[in-house]
This record gives sequence, structure tokens and C-alpha cells, in this order.
Amino acid sequence: MLASWLEGQGWQVVLTREPGGTAFGDALREILLSPVDYAILPESEVLLLAAARAQHVRERILPALEAGIAVVCDRFVDSTLAYQGGGHGISLDRLIPIQEFATGGLEPDLRMLLDIPVDIGLARRHADPSSVNRIDRASVAFHERVRQTFLSLAEANPDGWSVIDGCDDVASVARTLHTEIEMRVLTRFLPPPTRSS
Amino acid sequence: MLASWLEGQGWQVVLTREPGGTAFGDALREILLSPVDYAILPESEVLLLAAARAQHVRERILPALEAGIAVVCDRFVDSTLAYQGGGHGISLDRLIPIQEFATGGLEPDLRMLLDIPVDIGLARRHADPSSVNRIDRASVAFHERVRQTFLSLAEANPDGWSVIDGCDDVASVARTLHTEIEMRVLTRFLPPPTRSS
Repeated sequence: MLASWLEGQGWQVVLTREPGGTAFGDALREILLSPVDYAILPESEVLLLAAARAQHVRERILPALEAGIAVVCDRFVDSTLAYQGGGHGISLDRLIPIQEFATGGLEPDLRMLLDIPVDIGLARRHADPSSVNRIDRASVAFHERVRQTFLSLAEANPDGWSVIDGCDDVASVARTLHTEIEMRVLTRFLPPPTRSS
Repeated sequence: MLASWLEGQGWQVVLTREPGGTAFGDALREILLSPVDYAILPESEVLLLAAARAQHVRERILPALEAGIAVVCDRFVDSTLAYQGGGHGISLDRLIPIQEFATGGLEPDLRMLLDIPVDIGLARRHADPSSVNRIDRASVAFHERVRQTFLSLAEANPDGWSVIDGCDDVASVARTLHTEIEMRVLTRFLPPPTRSS
């Protein structure tokens, strides 16, 4: 919905996600999220996600940004800090150098956190059993730590984050997102050359 | 041959290799070494190798060492420094923190470098076309930089390395390896409890 709205504002948009976003990243996503008969250790998971991210940044995100295209990405560095840091207990000090190597220091203009209590979020995921992946099956305590880490990261850097109530109905969440993007991101850029208005 | 010789000395041995050595690592090895229709960027390659290494150290190498088993590993951290550092030009300062995250600081008792001129090494690889992988197909200049990086690492840390002439016949190389291991590694350990002599 955000990508469509941006297109309606005259922007070209790349809508992408992590892990994935490239052929290489999709191959790693398959390994990460599929049920496998061995445990992927937290350090291995961090490095695999970072490998997909390094390729995604260089092959897809940077070329789009350099061409003046808006990039909407589902998950980025902060998801690693929340899941592998907060969730699995690897210190952020150990994770951050790996992220800098992977991204070359690229940061989003705005991180949008759709916040929701863990029980409601998990109930939504499990409502469609075919979409439940390896990480969805982690414990409630794990997901609580993930949520609290996301909220702490947002609190520590209010200029870089929007925290949006994910319990609202879809149309309200979308409206809030559009307003946040309009006020906090688009004002920093010239209007797109193809803007229709 | 080294593993068999160690077994003959009464040691239990784990013979393993990187990338690979675990089910997870073998899945990544397949992605890294198979011909694919997209370029794997050097940073992505570093992180993917490190992911396989993190799993390999924790799942296979450390449990063996803790049980008093000898580990013979075909490639480790220094191959990343040589191929992705020397070969692809990523600075060792950027690579080393990633290696420390992956290995938790584990270092081999001895690194054995079978050194051979690039043209002879590549001719040996290409003699069996079915064994030629993506990295074998890199340029001669790339392989020259890899060789020089290995030699520099060995020169900077003579206590940690044996450099052995890989042009010698197989039996001579094996004898040299056994002597080096006997003098430089086994003398630091008690004889294995099952030693036959």
C-alpha cells in the first residue's frame, strides 16, 4: 500500500524485502526460513542474513537510490539487532560491525515500526498455517525480547523511526504511514520529475 | 593422508573442510561453488563463508577438540584473508572482525600451506574439468594475489605456519607434513590414550 501510494505521488518505487530481494538472497532466504533437520546457530544466522543484505544493498538498493527511485524495504539492519541481538542475546556491539560491513554504512531515511503485542502478532501469523516459518515458531518470550529491542532502538533514535500502532485497522495504519512519510521524508527531497500534480 | 597418519599414531581424527563440514555449510558451499546466473559480490561471499565457518566451529570443530580429538581442516580463516582479502581487495582490517565473530577467536595449532606456482596449480585443477569450480575460473592475476597473501601471512607468523613445497611428489609432501606435525604440534600434547606403541 505504501509503494502504491508513493507511485500515486509520482515516485518510481522499488518494493523489496529481506532476507531476499536478489536471486542470491532468495536462495539464502530459503535456507533460513524453511524447516530443516539441523539447528542454524545464532552466529551463523547473523552472518547469513548479512550476506543476503550485502548483496541486496549493492545489487538492488544503491542502484535504485542513485537513479532517484524510492526504496521501500520490508526489514533491514534493525531486524537483525532485534531478532539476533534482543531475541538470541548476541550483544549489539558484536552485531554492529558486521552490519556496517554488509551495508557499507547505508541507513534508511525512516524506519517504520508497526508495533503490536506479541500474542496478537503471533495469532495473525498462525491464522494462515502455510505462512508460518521457522522464526514464527520461536517462543513467546523470544518474540517479547524482539519487540522490546525494536521499541528501545526507536526510543534511542526518534528522528530515525516512526512507531505506529499495528493494532489499528489497515486503512488507519496506511494513512498514518503516508502522513509520516510525507512530513518526515518527502520534505527532504525535490518532488519527483514525473510528479503528476 | 595426514588424517590416516594421525590415526596410525593413535589419534582419533575429524577430517573436515570449508566451506562445508556441516549440513548447513554444505548447503552454502553449493551456492558458493556452483555456477549460478548471478554474480556473488565479494562482501556477500565473505559473509556467506563466515556463516558456514561459524556453524562449523561450533557444531563440529570445538566439540571434537573438547573431546581430545585431532581436527584436520581443509581451509579456514586464512583462506578468506587470501581469497577475499588479497584476491578481491577487501582490506584485512575489515575482514578480521568478521572472522573473530565467526570463530569466537579459535585458531589452528598449525596452518600448513602447500605452496605451488599458480600455473601449475591451475593446470592440476583443470586436468579434471568436472572438479573445476567458480573460484578456479578466476583470472591468473587473482590467483597470484591469493598466493602472495598466503605467503605474506605465513611470513608474518612463522610460529603459526608451515610452508611446504607443493611441487614435490605426493609422498615427499606427506612426509614433510608428518614431520612438521610431529615436531611442532604433537610435542605440545600428551600422547593419545589409545596410542598403540
